Amino acid sequence: MINYPNKKRRQDRKIVSTANRGMNFENMINQTNEFYLNNDLAIIHKKPIPIQIVKVDYKQRSAAKIVEAYYKLPSTTDYNGIYKGRYIDFEAKETKNKTSFPIKNIHEHQVIHLEQCAKHGAIAFIIIYFSLLDRIFFLDQKYVSEYYHRAKNSRKSITLAEIEKYGIEITEGYRKPVDYLKVIDEHYL
Amino acid sequence: MINYPNKKRRQDRKIVSTANRGMNFENMINQTNEFYLNNDLAIIHKKPIPIQIVKVDYKQRSAAKIVEAYYKLPSTTDYNGIYKGRYIDFEAKETKNKTSFPIKNIHEHQVIHLEQCAKHGAIAFIIIYFSLLDRIFFLDQKYVSEYYHRAKNSRKSITLAEIEKYGIEITEGYRKPVDYLKVIDEHYL
Repeated sequence: MINYPNKKRRQDRKIVSTANRGMNFENMINQTNEFYLNNDLAIIHKKPIPIQIVKVDYKQRSAAKIVEAYYKLPSTTDYNGIYKGRYIDFEAKETKNKTSFPIKNIHEHQVIHLEQCAKHGAIAFIIIYFSLLDRIFFLDQKYVSEYYHRAKNSRKSITLAEIEKYGIEITEGYRKPVDYLKVIDEHYL
Repeated sequence: MINYPNKKRRQDRKIVSTANRGMNFENMINQTNEFYLNNDLAIIHKKPIPIQIVKVDYKQRSAAKIVEAYYKLPSTTDYNGIYKGRYIDFEAKETKNKTSFPIKNIHEHQVIHLEQCAKHGAIAFIIIYFSLLDRIFFLDQKYVSEYYHRAKNSRKSITLAEIEKYGIEITEGYRKPVDYLKVIDEHYL
C-alpha cells in the first residue's frame, strides 16, 4: 500500500462523533433518511428487498401469507430519492476489512446503474462502512467504476488509502448517524 | 357530471394506437421503462413490493427459502428515477370504472409522498388506466392532492371529465405502450 500522507485527515478524525455508531449500518442510514424526511430536507427511501413470490396462502381470514418466496438479485441500488431538486442514487456497503474494500461487494449491474444515473444528471455514489475502523466514506460513482474496471485485470479491492484520497469521510450529525447530505452540500451543490 | 366540451379530445383519441394495450397495465409500464432504459432515455424502475419477512429456511442446499412473509403497505409510490436530470416519481393505477377514478385507489401516504417530492423539485404524478375504455391519463400530483382532499368532504372520486380537463391523455409510441415521457417533454421541460 502506498504511504499516503493523511496527517490532516487523521486530525479530522478526532472530531468525528460516533455516539450512534453502535447500531447496524442499514439502521444508521435509515435513521439518517428519516431525519432528512421529518425535517423536510430530502425525500430518500430504501427500496424494498426484491423477492420472487412463488406461493401465497389466501386461506386464512387475516392477511395473505406468503409461504414460498426467494430473494432476487437487485437490479438497481438500495437507495434513491431527491435532494434540492437533484436525483440522488446510492448503494451502502459494509466491510469488516480494515485495509481495503473488496470489489466483490458490488454487483456489476449496480456499477452500471450508478454510471447510467450519473450520465443522466444524478448524484450517484456508494457509502462504505469500515465497521471495525468505525469509519464511513462517500465515494463518487466515477471512482467506483474506475476501480470496478481495474479489478478485472488488477487488484480486486479499493485500498483504504485510495478511499481516503478520492472519497470523503462522512461525519455524524445530530440525529444523523451518516450525514451524507453534508458531503453533497460541500462537494456537489 | 358536467358536460365538458371535449370534441377536440375525441378527435385526438382517434390517433391513439392501442396495438400493445392488451397486456396487463404493470407490464405496459415496465415495457415502456425498459424501452427508455435500453435506449438510454431515462432510468426509471419499479420498486419491489414491500414484504415483511418472518421466517426463512436456510436448510436447503440451494437458495434460502422464505417460508413466512406478509405484504406490507408501501410507504412511497411504485416508480421513480431520473429523466433529463429531473427526478421522476409516480404511481400507476388501474380502474374498471368507466366514468370516474375512485379516490380510495390511492393511499394517503402516497399522496403525501408525491406532494413532498414535488415540493423538492420532482416531476410527480399518477398514471390512471381506464381499462374498459382503454384510455390512459397522466395527472399531475397537484390535482391528485386537490381531489384527494376534496374526497374528505365531498365526492369520493375524480370524474373522467375532470381527468380529461386537467390530465393529459397518454398515447402509445413504438415499443412504448405508455409513453409518459412524451407528456413530460411537452408539458414540463
